[in-house]
Amino acid sequence: MVTEIPGPESLNQLHQLDQIQNTDAVAFFADYDKSCGNYIVDADDNVMLDLFTQMASIPIGYNHPKLTEAISKKENWSTFINRPSLGIFPPDNWNQLLKEDLLSVAPLGMKQVQTMSCGSCTIENGLKAMFIAHERRRRGGAPPTPEEMSSCMCNLPPGSADITILSFTGASHGWTLGALAASHANWMQKLDLRTMKWPVATFPSLKYPLEEYETENRMEEERSLSEVADKIEQYKKNGRPVAGCCIEPVQSAGGDNHASPWFFRELQKICKHNSVALLMDEIQTGCGSTGKFWAHEHFELPEPPDLMAFGKKMLAGGFYYREEMRPLEPFRIFNTWVGDSSKIVLLRAVLDMIKEDNLLALVSDTGTHLLKGLRDIERKYPCYISNARGLGTLCALDFPNNTERDKIIHGLRNRGVNTGPSGDRSIRLRPSLTFTKSHADIFLEIFESTIENKMA
Amino acid sequence: MVTEIPGPESLNQLHQLDQIQNTDAVAFFADYDKSCGNYIVDADDNVMLDLFTQMASIPIGYNHPKLTEAISKKENWSTFINRPSLGIFPPDNWNQLLKEDLLSVAPLGMKQVQTMSCGSCTIENGLKAMFIAHERRRRGGAPPTPEEMSSCMCNLPPGSADITILSFTGASHGWTLGALAASHANWMQKLDLRTMKWPVATFPSLKYPLEEYETENRMEEERSLSEVADKIEQYKKNGRPVAGCCIEPVQSAGGDNHASPWFFRELQKICKHNSVALLMDEIQTGCGSTGKFWAHEHFELPEPPDLMAFGKKMLAGGFYYREEMRPLEPFRIFNTWVGDSSKIVLLRAVLDMIKEDNLLALVSDTGTHLLKGLRDIERKYPCYISNARGLGTLCALDFPNNTERDKIIHGLRNRGVNTGPSGDRSIRLRPSLTFTKSHADIFLEIFESTIENKMA
Repeated sequence: MVTEIPGPESLNQLHQLDQIQNTDAVAFFADYDKSCGNYIVDADDNVMLDLFTQMASIPIGYNHPKLTEAISKKENWSTFINRPSLGIFPPDNWNQLLKEDLLSVAPLGMKQVQTMSCGSCTIENGLKAMFIAHERRRRGGAPPTPEEMSSCMCNLPPGSADITILSFTGASHGWTLGALAASHANWMQKLDLRTMKWPVATFPSLKYPLEEYETENRMEEERSLSEVADKIEQYKKNGRPVAGCCIEPVQSAGGDNHASPWFFRELQKICKHNSVALLMDEIQTGCGSTGKFWAHEHFELPEPPDLMAFGKKMLAGGFYYREEMRPLEPFRIFNTWVGDSSKIVLLRAVLDMIKEDNLLALVSDTGTHLLKGLRDIERKYPCYISNARGLGTLCALDFPNNTERDKIIHGLRNRGVNTGPSGDRSIRLRPSLTFTKSHADIFLEIFESTIENKMA
Repeated sequence: MVTEIPGPESLNQLHQLDQIQNTDAVAFFADYDKSCGNYIVDADDNVMLDLFTQMASIPIGYNHPKLTEAISKKENWSTFINRPSLGIFPPDNWNQLLKEDLLSVAPLGMKQVQTMSCGSCTIENGLKAMFIAHERRRRGGAPPTPEEMSSCMCNLPPGSADITILSFTGASHGWTLGALAASHANWMQKLDLRTMKWPVATFPSLKYPLEEYETENRMEEERSLSEVADKIEQYKKNGRPVAGCCIEPVQSAGGDNHASPWFFRELQKICKHNSVALLMDEIQTGCGSTGKFWAHEHFELPEPPDLMAFGKKMLAGGFYYREEMRPLEPFRIFNTWVGDSSKIVLLRAVLDMIKEDNLLALVSDTGTHLLKGLRDIERKYPCYISNARGLGTLCALDFPNNTERDKIIHGLRNRGVNTGPSGDRSIRLRPSLTFTKSHADIFLEIFESTIENKMA
């Protein structure tokens, strides 16, 4: 470390940027040419071990040679400079990119895929797919009536029926108005925005480590599930039926809240029983960070969810879905670009590395080591740190409150470690898939010394 | 032309893609390596003059050498392979990219800019900015109350007050639920989707050429404006005040509907008088296609709109905005990436070419020539073609109905010309900025022969 974070050059840049837009969320300016592997370099030449990786969206570290190779190949350039309307004029290698790359990692039982440009658009269009499938079922296969076609143009029933989406407290599904209607992680995301009033169930509030509190946790999960079933019933009675339910395998921005595999299996049962589509939002949890390619593989669901959203580390956004969720008409799930094929060219390099370097096994091993280390430190400072938890390297731990948590994040940065917040009082760890035990040891040492220093 | 469109290779690819997703909107598969300048080449080696350009999103033609140069430069590669969270860890060249590129073409009087990944996210966040500014004004500068902060988490007032956005019939602002609440172009976009019930005013239905029907058109525009004023008044009385108004300079997907500069100036007056923010959606009309960099420059507004959205030909999405629309807290206008700096690296090449080759003047000249040619053909087939209209090369004309329009688009493709539909019965022309009079002549000749053939 050369300077405090943010250093003078970051502050200089911050001052300039503040003339153009609100900069209150900026931590520091980065030098992405110098950043390498698990290390991010800032504009003042400070080198930090990065366990936040652009909000969990750098899959195999900075400037990975495989990615440089992909961008250096002349045969890839036209994909970067001629962005197609993939829904009307797809490129002649589109099937290949979808099949060899995106579908090669599709969750078991899902053979359909829709690309999108970012996480928010992915969720918005996932919600739309659930609405469309619900209404098609209601019509029993009949085509839409003229009244439906005209009323929907003014957002009125019967064409825009009063159907709803069920979500959970603590959920974070995106930043557009539809995705925000199903998100409940942070008031700063939501204040002053007018969106739909949809049912919200209380996500289970569990005790960690999960394996030590199975009985209590089971009761809390039963409570949450019965709330889900009640809301579905109540909204059906009130004429506002629930078309779909969104959930993250781990609530990854609203506090890193976990639930048990049993909870997810039971939730799927309730949804199925009520003809409510289940959208698994793996935008943050997917692409290997839990040690399995998709986090919901840990749950051993008897059948796949109806839709599964991806983004961030996948570089491309989009969702996989089951046959039943496929729209039957054009222009239902659509926009100018419906994704960006150049991101899939880069994803190819990422998927190659995950296979070649067996990165899922690395994540599992490193994750076990990291979580053990976090728990060791938690035991030393039980009044200050609690609830160390994780799947793979997607780990988190809690602090007494927001202020203490923010102090630690700041303290860690000044000691050369970059982490991020989750919810009110958690720190989330989101390293790249190339994060090793040695990196974990460096982190754990600095983390412990930061806490020690704080307690001194 | 080698084959019918779609040719055997496109059909083969289509068959494969149809196993993965709905393909009803696919026209043909394209070979983007072979496509060049104003010509798109399909998977069967058919060469078409492209007047649709990926839904108006290819600014300077396919494989422009300046774009190839940009992607070939090693110093640009790290921007493509390390996508930052621009809101937290911006790159150290971010100020430079914003100032030298995005702000160099900012509309007069707008000094703030927010990037986004696509058009839909741009509009969603523009709507959010208008809501936030409205509620800040309501609070008179006071901080949000604890009740506001907690109620917004469940989408309830007072934190999520029942405020609305006014839009126009025929508008097309995007494909996410918030953007769709303000869009009314096509039932296939909207059917079965539940979104907000916001006020909708009837867009003026004018006669073309505008200059020949000034008196009638003025009456129709006055009708529309008085409807706008009435709706704003009515919604205020009903406790659902209008926070913002969205409008396109030309309704570019819902039928290429124009209104006069006077209409836009009066609309701005009404908005200002009622403290309603005005969002000018230039996603399709911007970046030069009307002969001015932004279409609303044709309107000579006495002051800039409150927000102006861009996308498509700009390669990057986002919006410029006035100081008053700037959020005062972090995480209000936000998401993982908030845009893609690699697109601005490419935009730099586009802006350079617009300046160096004086492309705005070229668009004006070509546009005048093109529209004259369209009107000549319209005069020959007055029962079949009507309402030839345009600003720059953003031109359109009408056919008797949907079926006839679609036949002509199909006929044109088979004669080597690619165009697109707008609204129920219009063809829209959206060539690149490098489209010349010679290209226009080729198009006009093929267009006339297609009509002739149809009439024979």
